[in-house]
Amino acid sequence: MSKIITISRQFGSGGREIGRKLSEKLGYAYFDKELITAVAEQTGLSAEYVEIFSESHSVKNTPYLFGRTFITYQESPAEQIQIVQHKILNELAEKGDCVIIGRCADYILREQNPFKLFIYSSSMDAKLERCYAKVPAEKGTSNKQMIKQINEVDKKRSKYYEYYTSQKWAEVENYNLCIDTARFSIDKAIDIIVNAVK
Amino acid sequence: MSKIITISRQFGSGGREIGRKLSEKLGYAYFDKELITAVAEQTGLSAEYVEIFSESHSVKNTPYLFGRTFITYQESPAEQIQIVQHKILNELAEKGDCVIIGRCADYILREQNPFKLFIYSSSMDAKLERCYAKVPAEKGTSNKQMIKQINEVDKKRSKYYEYYTSQKWAEVENYNLCIDTARFSIDKAIDIIVNAVK
Repeated sequence: MSKIITISRQFGSGGREIGRKLSEKLGYAYFDKELITAVAEQTGLSAEYVEIFSESHSVKNTPYLFGRTFITYQESPAEQIQIVQHKILNELAEKGDCVIIGRCADYILREQNPFKLFIYSSSMDAKLERCYAKVPAEKGTSNKQMIKQINEVDKKRSKYYEYYTSQKWAEVENYNLCIDTARFSIDKAIDIIVNAVK
Repeated sequence: MSKIITISRQFGSGGREIGRKLSEKLGYAYFDKELITAVAEQTGLSAEYVEIFSESHSVKNTPYLFGRTFITYQESPAEQIQIVQHKILNELAEKGDCVIIGRCADYILREQNPFKLFIYSSSMDAKLERCYAKVPAEKGTSNKQMIKQINEVDKKRSKYYEYYTSQKWAEVENYNLCIDTARFSIDKAIDIIVNAVK
């Protein structure tokens, strides 16, 4: 069976960087934005559209989805994306060892016993620093605005996760290892994970 | 400055065993029940009484404590225990490297930048197995009763923690590393921690 590492992460925690470098170190395939392209190809929807709905669509803004009890015979685009994403994730997991960022992969692939990581930062200052370093143009943004944006992204991820998994995002019991990047450097976090999975 | 490792843990997760073995491996002092004896000596209260109030008293059952806004000039026994425990923890942290189990040490010693661990188990079956192995006499207890007990202990710890720290127990951001003992053996968990702190 393939070895699968799923990474759920707070915005600004460095989780995506950890995932990419970890996959290189372990020689695993890496899936993040690659999933968007694959879903776009299979659904015929644009990549931009898929990106919006692939991990953080707000349920209340999706007219077709009024909750789980609402029955429709016509899937909404958000649902189509979910179905195709689900299928693609299962295909990837069959192919070989991989690291997958977000997209409820921890839940979707639960039968394959993935190693489930949650990457977070206990320091908002550290998150801000990371965001500013990544998007220098954003330096005109006030800290207050940036914190609002950071919290909004996580809120969307949380809602999305809870909607599709009926589990709580960021709740320890849904993961095997949770690492605070305010305490550890990216390289040290990778070292901890490599040691944990070996 | 002393190196301090604090361990918060779910009941039945093996957190206490990890703490003890970890302290032996690192050559650190270990404080768990030892704190109860020290508090009992300094308050003149019995060790049994201190144990009840040292980590999991239920606020609603403590007549003197009606919440933070209630002002009393006479400390309740629960408050006395807290004050003395706080003082003792600070003294211990001054003395040298140590591992401390529970008792809000992560919060009380926050100025000393402790390494904060949360040990949990994502599997109730694993918790049950650990509880039965520890207390064979309890085998007469039904799983349902045992699960109720496990959840009650954690609920008390959670309430206690939130009351004295104004933080949420088991919330990732209050810890630096959270380890699932349903995924890792006790020895592997210790290995992960030793690697993380070095």
